[in-house]
Amino acid sequence: MRWFFNRNQGDSMKIVALDIGGANTKILVWEDGKSESQLEYFPFWTEKQRFKDFLSSLDLDADIVAVTMTAELCDVFSSKEEGAQFIADCCFDVFERPLFLTSHSDLRRHDEIKDFKTLAATNWLASKYYLEKRFDEGVLVDVGSTTTDIIAFGPGASGFASDFERLKTGRLLYTGFLRTPANTIVTSVPVNGSLVPVASEYFAITADVYNILWGVAYTCDTPDGAGKTYDDSLRRVSRLLCAEPDEVKDEVLGICEYIHDVQVEKIAGAIENAVEDFESEEIIAAGVGRRLAIEAAKKIEIDALDLETQVDIAWNLPCLGLLELVLDSREV
Amino acid sequence: MRWFFNRNQGDSMKIVALDIGGANTKILVWEDGKSESQLEYFPFWTEKQRFKDFLSSLDLDADIVAVTMTAELCDVFSSKEEGAQFIADCCFDVFERPLFLTSHSDLRRHDEIKDFKTLAATNWLASKYYLEKRFDEGVLVDVGSTTTDIIAFGPGASGFASDFERLKTGRLLYTGFLRTPANTIVTSVPVNGSLVPVASEYFAITADVYNILWGVAYTCDTPDGAGKTYDDSLRRVSRLLCAEPDEVKDEVLGICEYIHDVQVEKIAGAIENAVEDFESEEIIAAGVGRRLAIEAAKKIEIDALDLETQVDIAWNLPCLGLLELVLDSREV
Repeated sequence: MRWFFNRNQGDSMKIVALDIGGANTKILVWEDGKSESQLEYFPFWTEKQRFKDFLSSLDLDADIVAVTMTAELCDVFSSKEEGAQFIADCCFDVFERPLFLTSHSDLRRHDEIKDFKTLAATNWLASKYYLEKRFDEGVLVDVGSTTTDIIAFGPGASGFASDFERLKTGRLLYTGFLRTPANTIVTSVPVNGSLVPVASEYFAITADVYNILWGVAYTCDTPDGAGKTYDDSLRRVSRLLCAEPDEVKDEVLGICEYIHDVQVEKIAGAIENAVEDFESEEIIAAGVGRRLAIEAAKKIEIDALDLETQVDIAWNLPCLGLLELVLDSREV
Repeated sequence: MRWFFNRNQGDSMKIVALDIGGANTKILVWEDGKSESQLEYFPFWTEKQRFKDFLSSLDLDADIVAVTMTAELCDVFSSKEEGAQFIADCCFDVFERPLFLTSHSDLRRHDEIKDFKTLAATNWLASKYYLEKRFDEGVLVDVGSTTTDIIAFGPGASGFASDFERLKTGRLLYTGFLRTPANTIVTSVPVNGSLVPVASEYFAITADVYNILWGVAYTCDTPDGAGKTYDDSLRRVSRLLCAEPDEVKDEVLGICEYIHDVQVEKIAGAIENAVEDFESEEIIAAGVGRRLAIEAAKKIEIDALDLETQVDIAWNLPCLGLLELVLDSREV
């Protein structure tokens, strides 16, 4: 697909790429070869009705706006189709003739979309497009705040698959660096050498685990709505054992290391399958939690290239890919 | 401890027992030998500030009000002590000289409480008191909406233990019949004969699983705030696989049975330890999910007595125990 964009030679040109996730919206603003990225926390499960206002507030005046999404999975929508259409409608109302990435890796206007479900979960295709242009072929492991995407790219790589299909094949791991409830990674944790089952409440997330282990940029909401200090995370992890911090203070580092180990182990298992299928001997690690991908690769003794050393703003890979798609598709 | 209650012979007498949990408040109103129970859904994590109004709205005029609690664990409180004091203060403001059950199994007035932490997680002691009066000794397995309490009672049974201690010894299992997120029970589910990892979002709970399998009284909030029909539960369980209902409709019964099996297996393991420690050959099954306790007992080939066949309103065991404590403690 190609479309025509009327402009005079020498006019300046501004393109905006949006990756609309359930928790975060990533934005890339490109103007005459220079680009800037931003990350906006916009959680659909509480804020959905404000989405159009949110888009307006971004004040993104541009010649072309292109959109990819994953937020349609959020359970404020009764189906992916409803979610995708809601998001597309809001974009259509706020931006001038926005373009939407479809599961066929092409860009469509709102009035060209027959089935809004084809807009669902497309953001990894944008990443794939970027990677193929930049690295020809390989396996990307993108550990985000919420999920881990394993994307094989290049001539042998397969095309679109739904989230459900990618879960089945191990290409989508629903485990992330910040928002993942600790008790969905482990059902018990070590205390004085024994494994003790944890509470099944939404008490602590991976942001708390890595906040305690390493200190992190805690860019999502906290489970209890309280602060983001070390002590706050300590209290939340303690609560997983129905305990006060002083009851488990000697155990808490070991508990966090254990949760971390299990999470890395899961990622390592998925990487192992992917590199085997794709006959690759290394991965490219990306995302806010790429450290986990690098550790996982080490565990299974394969090399990992940190995308951050290769690409500016590597955390915004889907928007980088979307921009390339726009630039390659347009005819000026 | 004993206290004196001034009344004339022949006056009518009204006692109210309250078991204040994080999600539900159970109430028993006893008047001259007749009692009535009620269950009120009051989720602290969203409604905490309304708690005093909630208590007032119950319109519980009584000669004696006695209180036990577990809601202090809710993460709207920064510590159990803060939570227990908040709850006790609200009760003190609304009721006339209420009594509070402490970890020493005695009842105290508000001004007699030195350390409010001693009010934390006492409701299973009330149940234990009732059981010892009624059955002498045994092992109770109380599968509630949120947790499963395994309570050994009788001469050989130990006294108070905190939630943390009970988690460690396997006497508190943080798994329940309604509110437990399915992805804290299993990390993957069977689809076409393979295990597929599930999403780590708060998408579906045990109420959805048992709603699909058997139909249940869905007395808690739904994860997505939507309805409580079979189709609503189907949509929520499908979403665990990032799927629409039509993508997994042939699998969903098998998925629910699998989650159910794993949950029963966990309960069975805990029962096995408890009956071994206590040299018991049967259990008493109670709570809204007592069916799971009965199935678990069958799995390990021990007998289960359904408390519902022995006691009216067996789901309100803590309040029944609290009432007995009041009746046994008072001197008229």
